Amino acid sequence: MLSFASDYIEGAHPKILERLLETNFEIQPGYGEDAYCLCAKEKIRKACLCPDADVFFISGGTQTNRTVISAFLRDTEGVVSAATGHVNGHEGGAIEATGHKVLTLPASEGKLSAEDLRAYLRDFYADADGYPHMVQPGMVYISHPTEYGTLYGLGELRALRALCDEYGLPLFLDGARLGYGLVTPGSDVTLPDLARLTDVFYIGGTKVGALLGEAVVFPRSTPKHFFTHMKQNGAVLAKGRVLGLQFDALFTDGLYLEIARHAVDLAERIRETLRECGYRFHIETPANQIFVVLGSEQMERLSREVVFTFWEKLDETSSVIRLCTSWATKPEAVERLCAVLREIAV
Amino acid sequence: MLSFASDYIEGAHPKILERLLETNFEIQPGYGEDAYCLCAKEKIRKACLCPDADVFFISGGTQTNRTVISAFLRDTEGVVSAATGHVNGHEGGAIEATGHKVLTLPASEGKLSAEDLRAYLRDFYADADGYPHMVQPGMVYISHPTEYGTLYGLGELRALRALCDEYGLPLFLDGARLGYGLVTPGSDVTLPDLARLTDVFYIGGTKVGALLGEAVVFPRSTPKHFFTHMKQNGAVLAKGRVLGLQFDALFTDGLYLEIARHAVDLAERIRETLRECGYRFHIETPANQIFVVLGSEQMERLSREVVFTFWEKLDETSSVIRLCTSWATKPEAVERLCAVLREIAV
Amino acid sequence: MLSFASDYIEGAHPKILERLLETNFEIQPGYGEDAYCLCAKEKIRKACLCPDADVFFISGGTQTNRTVISAFLRDTEGVVSAATGHVNGHEGGAIEATGHKVLTLPASEGKLSAEDLRAYLRDFYADADGYPHMVQPGMVYISHPTEYGTLYGLGELRALRALCDEYGLPLFLDGARLGYGLVTPGSDVTLPDLARLTDVFYIGGTKVGALLGEAVVFPRSTPKHFFTHMKQNGAVLAKGRVLGLQFDALFTDGLYLEIARHAVDLAERIRETLRECGYRFHIETPANQIFVVLGSEQMERLSREVVFTFWEKLDETSSVIRLCTSWATKPEAVERLCAVLREIAV
Amino acid sequence: MLSFASDYIEGAHPKILERLLETNFEIQPGYGEDAYCLCAKEKIRKACLCPDADVFFISGGTQTNRTVISAFLRDTEGVVSAATGHVNGHEGGAIEATGHKVLTLPASEGKLSAEDLRAYLRDFYADADGYPHMVQPGMVYISHPTEYGTLYGLGELRALRALCDEYGLPLFLDGARLGYGLVTPGSDVTLPDLARLTDVFYIGGTKVGALLGEAVVFPRSTPKHFFTHMKQNGAVLAKGRVLGLQFDALFTDGLYLEIARHAVDLAERIRETLRECGYRFHIETPANQIFVVLGSEQMERLSREVVFTFWEKLDETSSVIRLCTSWATKPEAVERLCAVLREIAV
Repeated sequence: MLSFASDYIEGAHPKILERLLETNFEIQPGYGEDAYCLCAKEKIRKACLCPDADVFFISGGTQTNRTVISAFLRDTEGVVSAATGHVNGHEGGAIEATGHKVLTLPASEGKLSAEDLRAYLRDFYADADGYPHMVQPGMVYISHPTEYGTLYGLGELRALRALCDEYGLPLFLDGARLGYGLVTPGSDVTLPDLARLTDVFYIGGTKVGALLGEAVVFPRSTPKHFFTHMKQNGAVLAKGRVLGLQFDALFTDGLYLEIARHAVDLAERIRETLRECGYRFHIETPANQIFVVLGSEQMERLSREVVFTFWEKLDETSSVIRLCTSWATKPEAVERLCAVLREIAV
Repeated sequence: MLSFASDYIEGAHPKILERLLETNFEIQPGYGEDAYCLCAKEKIRKACLCPDADVFFISGGTQTNRTVISAFLRDTEGVVSAATGHVNGHEGGAIEATGHKVLTLPASEGKLSAEDLRAYLRDFYADADGYPHMVQPGMVYISHPTEYGTLYGLGELRALRALCDEYGLPLFLDGARLGYGLVTPGSDVTLPDLARLTDVFYIGGTKVGALLGEAVVFPRSTPKHFFTHMKQNGAVLAKGRVLGLQFDALFTDGLYLEIARHAVDLAERIRETLRECGYRFHIETPANQIFVVLGSEQMERLSREVVFTFWEKLDETSSVIRLCTSWATKPEAVERLCAVLREIAV
Repeated sequence: MLSFASDYIEGAHPKILERLLETNFEIQPGYGEDAYCLCAKEKIRKACLCPDADVFFISGGTQTNRTVISAFLRDTEGVVSAATGHVNGHEGGAIEATGHKVLTLPASEGKLSAEDLRAYLRDFYADADGYPHMVQPGMVYISHPTEYGTLYGLGELRALRALCDEYGLPLFLDGARLGYGLVTPGSDVTLPDLARLTDVFYIGGTKVGALLGEAVVFPRSTPKHFFTHMKQNGAVLAKGRVLGLQFDALFTDGLYLEIARHAVDLAERIRETLRECGYRFHIETPANQIFVVLGSEQMERLSREVVFTFWEKLDETSSVIRLCTSWATKPEAVERLCAVLREIAV
Repeated sequence: MLSFASDYIEGAHPKILERLLETNFEIQPGYGEDAYCLCAKEKIRKACLCPDADVFFISGGTQTNRTVISAFLRDTEGVVSAATGHVNGHEGGAIEATGHKVLTLPASEGKLSAEDLRAYLRDFYADADGYPHMVQPGMVYISHPTEYGTLYGLGELRALRALCDEYGLPLFLDGARLGYGLVTPGSDVTLPDLARLTDVFYIGGTKVGALLGEAVVFPRSTPKHFFTHMKQNGAVLAKGRVLGLQFDALFTDGLYLEIARHAVDLAERIRETLRECGYRFHIETPANQIFVVLGSEQMERLSREVVFTFWEKLDETSSVIRLCTSWATKPEAVERLCAVLREIAV
């Protein structure tokens, strides 16, 4: 059975496992003080052209989001997010569990627009001090690629940054699938851009070739006691080496982007076939996720050979499915998928 | 340089890495639905002689403690713990961050005694409904081995269980180093005992040969929505296979206990030397941790060749240090340590 | 200057002050154990035809909402509310501060419709267990009158109740202005109806003639340790008599409804004038709040003689204002207001 | 039946009720923006000789403690308190419910000593950054009078202040019974002292003649968004005038201290009798609370005529009881109490 269900259905890139084996018996201090963490941090700083950045490794995305967001917010502040943001709907109420409201704005194809953000902030601060019975905006959260696979352009990020500067708000970019966004043809956003334009972002490992792990980067300044904050959130691994070593491998010889490119190239191959056969895209997405509309029978036939993600029902006869490639997707699997898609095309 | 600093300073047992390599390209669903998690759960149920137990895998100990404890407690309840309990002092306020008080009782060598617990509960419920201005006891937390390396006897656990039954309190056993406790000569507590006597306990992986991971076992019943509870706490890995596979390996052919026995045997070897040379133990501990008193000069000389953990200062001229063995400790390292200890003995 | 700004701009009904004076030197136990609390509870039970109801007194609405909602919800549950619900926007994030998400559904004139609630619940439970990465609905919150002054009909409440029964959800009715809703001509909802149809509701005192205080009624069963829950939320007054005594007065000889009727009658008088003069209502509301559209110049002229609440700007030339009557509104003030409204009518 | 059970068993000082009556029909804005709040704040600033102080009114003590403490602390910080501090044991876990640990130090007669605080801080900061796995001290909490009726001397407060300055910690003084402490003969602590030596303190109203209400004073600077913080904690009354007006009355013509002096004088009268008759004091207390040791039979006989508070059992035959005077205690009641105490003296 083929699977295009997600980008976290295989293990890790072989180079990561190799490093785990090589270093297994070395004695290293715990809690992120090991040599691999230190080395990986240095490589990430270099890749971001940000020599003073502070870097931390956390095991997963929800963990990272709740730890980062709550470290920035004061008790009466909330985090502004597109309504489709991962923090709003799919993290089991993790942000609220830290005591903070997710302040939602309408999303357009998964993105938060500077226009919507400006209108919201202008209204909230119609009186200089804001409305004292309401939660104050305390941070802006975006994801890149978004939950719908779309990407911000550099101009869009700059516009959000300018607004954040105007209102004194930190900007946080959730990069759970960042690699795929960075290598997508046509994308003009780079790691150094993120280091210049955000207050904190994370480089996703779990979905881009690691067993687990996300690298949180603070390019400007780090919230006080951030390590204790991580500890309190259960986000510190005793064997921190496991995370450091993986990012060390991913940031050696450009492996991180190489992995991502592989996935994006194969996704583009699938998109071509879909276009040729006249399939309708639910959203036009450029990176490693494809949202395509299928009829009920097509969906049934596809499911005989391929595992995919059911996204949502559109109407009585058609639905949206998601197809996803990863570092580990095999070209022959893509060929076979394309063949099936051709067969079942109307 | 030798190191006896802790049991989390090396990687993972080679059989675990072997399994990671073998299974790396297999496609498996995420979030703990993979075949390895299912298989590991089954093996753990068998080892506990508890076919109906529910098992979950979480990446670390603090994460596990906060997730389990908050899943059991109602808002006005706290968790009763020895003052020396890990949840009280060394988790960055993780329990309080979930909104709950740690209700501390005096520890005796790291243990919570049934006598102290009974006196506290009797006082609290001197009026039938308890004192309504105070936090109610909602769970009892113990660790085994304790933070001081000591072990509960079966009789002690039974006495705590009887009290918990009397007062309707769930009993939670933190087994971050459980393996070492189970194999210690003279210990009469087994996995099936824990399954019979607790409402929830966890089998530590991180400190007993895994890269990361703890297996939470609910022998009786599971708090409602526990998976969502984990998600909210950031305790769910997308590639849950990484945890499942490790516990699958650890519970194949008795590896978990074999690993622990190795460490405990070597610790006993060190203890013999210490006894021979007349060293004073701060606490008599039977498992893989040794708490020994050294003079300032001894400590300085030892530190030239051996990494250890400074525990606490006793007075102007002497201190307590901790020596710790692990699954990966080499017999030759122990021999060299013993030689140094002999050299610097007074 | 006249003021129709709100229903909390005067002190308390004279009968309440009279009782405070009469009883001032009586010695009574604290924390709600006094004779007036006991007596007021009994009178409220009678008014609700619910002899087994449990009643508690809390000083204000936000305090009540956060205490009641968090007492019902488990950690992974949220409260379902219309997007315009007070708990969603105007309580400074009080619900989220207790760790819970407000799950918003679209409001229609401030009300939550059974249709929207059914659609949401059906989607959430499309899989029998709900979607485990999302916050579960754990309670339904409605207000009556709503934040927009509208009222539920008995049929609407029954439909919501039926859905709550079907999905095992408690139904909570915020009655900050309940009195005004109960006496509005045409309203078919009574206190005994609320006792039959909700799991908890509160009878607002602050906005209906008391100095402060809300009476929380649990007609069916009370969350465990609710008093401690109140204490934890800072919702227990040492001199609980202050709250008990006020509700004792309000529930003696029908004072509560009499007060409310006075306000609603005067509001109706204002509405008649507005209709006669051809003003446009933003929302048709039946109780003590009136939402009317004024042009900029009208608004300016009105503000010279009358204090009102600016509600929202509709477009460049017109806005919505709120006029509110209370137990203390004087008929002569209403006459003068009506005269001004006639003068400035277009 | 006489009652010396507490200082919150009667209503309010008659001058307060008088003001409530006089002002009842005046129209005033809500939420603390009324003229009485403004006026009361000004009078409190004057009494504190602190013209720039910020003042807020909150309904009760637990409410005040949780709101103030959580407004100051960052997520990873806790509040340092004597183990006997009200926030530690008698507020239903209110502080922990806001996510923060109460870091307890041993109390000596209810007080936190500078010596104990210094030792704790020195240990915690033995490494410059503190121990990152532990909750950081973020505030120091003391009460005056303490829960045991004892008082800090000016020198003791200065020593605590100096330590707080050294470690950058805000100092919070809980003055639930402050009035009684200020007028106690021999006490050298005044309101201006508190304004100079603390970062925030509150002037208790509930237990010193008001129906309810505490005045929180920030002499130096106010936590950002403190009003929203109050709102989030449910600590804002719509009719804020009720609190403002009471403090306005209490701070007119020295009423606050006059009330307190009455209580303290009568307590001293009781103490004299106790001394004459040879009773043993459990703690020597100077203000309006008396902790005296009685034999079982004495306690039984006293309880026939007098309501008092049982404090704790000392041994099989003797217990500690608390006798408490208030603004409303009548001299004839004290005479009768003294007569009974003489009768039952051994």
